[in-house]
Amino acid sequence: MIQTPYLLFLGDAPDALAAKVAQGIKDWRPDVSVGQFRMPGCNADMGLADMTLAEAKAAGAKTLVIGVANRGGVISQAWRAVLVEALKMGFDIASGLHNLLRSEPALVAAAQTHGCTLHDVRVPNASYPIANGVRRTGKRCLAVGTDCSVGKMYTGIAIEREMRARGLDADFRATGQTGILITGSGVPLDAVIADFMAGAVEYLTPDAAPDHWDIIEGQGSLFHVSYSGVTMALVHGGQPDALILCHEPTRTHMRGLPDHVQPSLEELRDVALQMARVSNPGCKVVAISVNTQHLGKQEALDYLAQTEARVGLPTVDPYVQGASRLVDAMEAI
Amino acid sequence: MIQTPYLLFLGDAPDALAAKVAQGIKDWRPDVSVGQFRMPGCNADMGLADMTLAEAKAAGAKTLVIGVANRGGVISQAWRAVLVEALKMGFDIASGLHNLLRSEPALVAAAQTHGCTLHDVRVPNASYPIANGVRRTGKRCLAVGTDCSVGKMYTGIAIEREMRARGLDADFRATGQTGILITGSGVPLDAVIADFMAGAVEYLTPDAAPDHWDIIEGQGSLFHVSYSGVTMALVHGGQPDALILCHEPTRTHMRGLPDHVQPSLEELRDVALQMARVSNPGCKVVAISVNTQHLGKQEALDYLAQTEARVGLPTVDPYVQGASRLVDAMEAI
Repeated sequence: MIQTPYLLFLGDAPDALAAKVAQGIKDWRPDVSVGQFRMPGCNADMGLADMTLAEAKAAGAKTLVIGVANRGGVISQAWRAVLVEALKMGFDIASGLHNLLRSEPALVAAAQTHGCTLHDVRVPNASYPIANGVRRTGKRCLAVGTDCSVGKMYTGIAIEREMRARGLDADFRATGQTGILITGSGVPLDAVIADFMAGAVEYLTPDAAPDHWDIIEGQGSLFHVSYSGVTMALVHGGQPDALILCHEPTRTHMRGLPDHVQPSLEELRDVALQMARVSNPGCKVVAISVNTQHLGKQEALDYLAQTEARVGLPTVDPYVQGASRLVDAMEAI
Repeated sequence: MIQTPYLLFLGDAPDALAAKVAQGIKDWRPDVSVGQFRMPGCNADMGLADMTLAEAKAAGAKTLVIGVANRGGVISQAWRAVLVEALKMGFDIASGLHNLLRSEPALVAAAQTHGCTLHDVRVPNASYPIANGVRRTGKRCLAVGTDCSVGKMYTGIAIEREMRARGLDADFRATGQTGILITGSGVPLDAVIADFMAGAVEYLTPDAAPDHWDIIEGQGSLFHVSYSGVTMALVHGGQPDALILCHEPTRTHMRGLPDHVQPSLEELRDVALQMARVSNPGCKVVAISVNTQHLGKQEALDYLAQTEARVGLPTVDPYVQGASRLVDAMEAI
């Protein structure tokens, strides 16, 4: 478990996109984001208070979270100096970078000397079992997408927020790096050894009280040839009671695959449901979540209404409209 | 590439089942299996000549292949003495054991001193890319099963054998430990990191001549919740032109999953084809391969005929009847 609150390290992010991990944390966990640390050349801004390490420490920050992608996959000398200084001051550091904190001797040494923890959330920190397929108690929801990066994580977190606001017992279960940094724990599923993927999902969402909901973060797409195996492990290991279909309507092709077109929501519905019922025969597709960020306001409302009429499922953009109708649909099963 | 011919090490195998890797190699590559090495207590017998290390060396064997599971996952002192002696005599050693040869200091030291190679085929020996989904030249066949361990590997090797006997250009592409030991190379797909599974399959079956066939070894099942992610990566990374459905008709439940029943061949056909067409829109389901080892002779023939009539696809047990009709079906697409 990563200790909160966080100081969000934006480094020398050349633009807002480079700091999208920080953006996700700030959007969903403003309560644990006490400030941001920016270096010369930083063009990203989370709208948080700019803080020195000492100011963040005084404000109660326990973990410096690297919220920015590093250029060329290298932790620069300038970054390293800041990170070592943070460890000296007693901060833990959490990172989802491809190149690991634990591969940097200066950081390992400083963490050891000062009794701090380096969290590389990109690599698994547990030994997962092979999935046994035994039905677990409690309820589970999984977001599945027509493509990658269509809003599955945002949908899941929005649902958790709405359920908790209603006093329901719900946990978002993170399966990706940003989700883990937002939540403080989870399984980095894309880094798990193939044989243990579904078992890692079973491990992530154990037996729970009958009215407890695990909201499992989706990954990839059953129709995305690069990552469909990871998605399949989520569908089978997750044993979802409720599936939510996620879609981004302006894509002209599958992300990163120029020759592949997106499936329709109906195709996704049918395949995902058939596969989910292998592990949970009672599974239902309950709603549709659309990422309308690239549509105009009226265009978005029209698209949502038309889709709802066509497919016959509640259809919303939870980031714009909230997840109320999604939770209603989950509660109704 | 593992050097042939092989000496098959049966160790102190308590029964024939413990030596099933050796059995697979002997069944399919008798041409490269010069002999067997048995220790006191060995109750397995491949019907090959029993040889000392010196006799095997004289007979031309280049690699000692561990064809037996080790008790308790530990390489015993008795095994170790034989393996070190083999390295001293210039043998390479190949193993699909969970505990690795490279984790045994005595073996590593002897291999280094004597210039021999230790092949741990359970772990990947290459850095695989993320799948790009670009269509590759040449033709590909993939066996998909209603369950695990229903004869997908045997089906694939039988097809390769039949195609080569006809003078066709075909390669069996191994994706599991036994298959790799039989073939001498391949990708241990269940040990690959999740994000790279489909890319590893693309790497395994690269562009080829238009009339070349890659016969890709299947793994798991789209309907087996423990391993379905691996199967999905094969379906999408493999870009199959031809799917062959594999089935074992006497199973009362999915292997290792007492609460899960097998899908019908029709369910497998429909899901596998839809998923395969995501990566290769021209894919066809061409035939059915049934493992009839647990049926009586007439019972088997009846089952094959009834299944063929019901599903409308050529249906054979290639281990009993040969793969001729499977290859006819592939050639007809």
